[in-house]
Amino acid sequence: MSLKFEIIGRQGKSRRGRLHTKHGIVETPAFMPVGTCGTVKAMMPESVAATGAQILLGNTYHLMLRPGADLVAKMGGLHKFMNWDKPILTDSGGFQVMSLTGLRKLTEEGVTFSSHVDGKKFFLSPEESMSIQHKLDSNITMALDECTPFPATYEQAKKSMEMSMRWARRSREAFVDREGYGIFGIQQGSVFEDLRAESAEKLKAIGFDGYAIGGLAVGEGQEKMFEVLDYAPGQLPDDKPRYLMGVGRPDDIVGAVLRGVDMFDCVMPTRSGRTSQAFTSRGTVNIRNARHREDHRPLEAECDCPLCKNYTRAYIHHLQKCNEVLAVMLLTWHNIRYYQRLMAGLRQAIEEKRLEEFAADFYARQAMGDIPEL
Amino acid sequence: MSLKFEIIGRQGKSRRGRLHTKHGIVETPAFMPVGTCGTVKAMMPESVAATGAQILLGNTYHLMLRPGADLVAKMGGLHKFMNWDKPILTDSGGFQVMSLTGLRKLTEEGVTFSSHVDGKKFFLSPEESMSIQHKLDSNITMALDECTPFPATYEQAKKSMEMSMRWARRSREAFVDREGYGIFGIQQGSVFEDLRAESAEKLKAIGFDGYAIGGLAVGEGQEKMFEVLDYAPGQLPDDKPRYLMGVGRPDDIVGAVLRGVDMFDCVMPTRSGRTSQAFTSRGTVNIRNARHREDHRPLEAECDCPLCKNYTRAYIHHLQKCNEVLAVMLLTWHNIRYYQRLMAGLRQAIEEKRLEEFAADFYARQAMGDIPEL
Repeated sequence: MSLKFEIIGRQGKSRRGRLHTKHGIVETPAFMPVGTCGTVKAMMPESVAATGAQILLGNTYHLMLRPGADLVAKMGGLHKFMNWDKPILTDSGGFQVMSLTGLRKLTEEGVTFSSHVDGKKFFLSPEESMSIQHKLDSNITMALDECTPFPATYEQAKKSMEMSMRWARRSREAFVDREGYGIFGIQQGSVFEDLRAESAEKLKAIGFDGYAIGGLAVGEGQEKMFEVLDYAPGQLPDDKPRYLMGVGRPDDIVGAVLRGVDMFDCVMPTRSGRTSQAFTSRGTVNIRNARHREDHRPLEAECDCPLCKNYTRAYIHHLQKCNEVLAVMLLTWHNIRYYQRLMAGLRQAIEEKRLEEFAADFYARQAMGDIPEL
Repeated sequence: MSLKFEIIGRQGKSRRGRLHTKHGIVETPAFMPVGTCGTVKAMMPESVAATGAQILLGNTYHLMLRPGADLVAKMGGLHKFMNWDKPILTDSGGFQVMSLTGLRKLTEEGVTFSSHVDGKKFFLSPEESMSIQHKLDSNITMALDECTPFPATYEQAKKSMEMSMRWARRSREAFVDREGYGIFGIQQGSVFEDLRAESAEKLKAIGFDGYAIGGLAVGEGQEKMFEVLDYAPGQLPDDKPRYLMGVGRPDDIVGAVLRGVDMFDCVMPTRSGRTSQAFTSRGTVNIRNARHREDHRPLEAECDCPLCKNYTRAYIHHLQKCNEVLAVMLLTWHNIRYYQRLMAGLRQAIEEKRLEEFAADFYARQAMGDIPEL
């Protein structure tokens, strides 16, 4: 295998790991900020690195449309193009393409779809997705799959999972092995334990550098998601990283780490930065709320991001009211830093075998709500 | 006087100066980026400082509406509020208020106007403007004046200038002297040499820490502006800084420095950063132009800003096409850095008494146009 994964600590089902790639190490459990179009929105890459993020997610769908994988390859790959020299994971493009209702046609061979930008026709197959991710020079390539919609009947989920497993094999075969690069397979099976088990067996038979849990966080709710996570990670190889795609809110992540997940990605911290919402240890805070207007306190006293170190709530509120870009820049930074502090806390708690106390404290603080109004 | 100004070098009419304020030194000739609403749009203040900018301009009009001068004062002043510990100059609010055609009523006492944000009524007089700028803790307060519209008849210009001079006296009287803080008067008189002279005499009789040349860059064109600048700076005291308000393009600035101006402000570098336009030593470049699509070269090889050091033209072009905030952040940074490099070049050229060669080289490069297409 081309990506080395060490497990350096455990507590219960939770694992403290270290994933080695050509572009550096990823300490797990890890959260990957999303850099959709070759940029983490409103962040300089140096700033993303300063938050503690060690790996980014890039979107194959967006990048294949603009600027195109060939151009990125010509520019020396995505790391160089976007000035990010740490690891990059790319998704397969499948999730976005499948969301283009009415604009795409799915067959066993692949998906034909029209670009949301200019209507231009594209074709995405396992082989094509591998080729694009190779051109992007992604450290972690994701197999192309169909993210089974929720809810799905057992028959629908089975049929969808089986095609995804055939695509997983084609993806694995088309992937070009290199030292420090790897490919992850994606488990499907919706909320059906036996389908999840069957999917896991098929993936293991193919053999991947890591295993993603797909088809969750698509509307089933946290309770249902945790039910699946009570068994799904255990169906996957113990010695490989497990990645829960598109998850999630801080409490989703803590719950998933407790259930044995190692990697996460989500647009939540970046998107929330553009809608005035800040994540804090005491839950989310909408800085646009009038109660912050004259508040001279930092958003979060214990946070070390520029927003919390250098500014009052009143200032960020003011920037928001004036629709200033700096508000988005600072809130995005804070939110990514919040997620990275959470992950660092989880990693340390596993090392010190006090994850349950950490989680209890986390949930208790979240439930407290924001500091009282001045 | 409360602001010390040293002239440490001269060549022809041009001066190399040093203005001492409570918040630090401003090396002149200086360009002040504009921080309209308590932020230089799309820039962290640390980044603004990294460009070499030593002083910012804040807008009294915008800040009095949002968040209000009392709130800024309560937060410890504008420096602290916006996390900028270097000097700040604030305009008087007059220019923006006078532009509110139909929404304002001008009398000898002052101007009543309606906020462009919510229609709320405000009153601005010399005394009120001084009070607001004091609350903002501005290092350089500008007297309230009427920026005479262009074109104006001789009679109109005279009447307007005379009222501005009465307002200048009221401004000076209302200004609270403190060490490291000062007030600048503003010369008016449109394009009439004798009115400019009369205005200068009246201002000198009042006595200010510095003198602005107002009523230019309002549509008269560069030729007409330079005609006025051929005599206006010389009408003002030699031992005080001279500030040309709202100017301008790089070639405006070079021409004005040659004519004895020391300070400038303009939204050009920041606004252009939001419209894909970059300033370079070879003229302006619109990075959205398709010819940059596959260009692996930096925007400007000799520039040391993050955009030029870390990215290709192709990448910035891509960001622009995707309307990514990072494009605005990087272009704004580049443009401010370009202006600061230009000012540093002008300062050094005056020190070394080779300003004419510098200017000739500047104009020759600007005329060359951008580097040839790949």
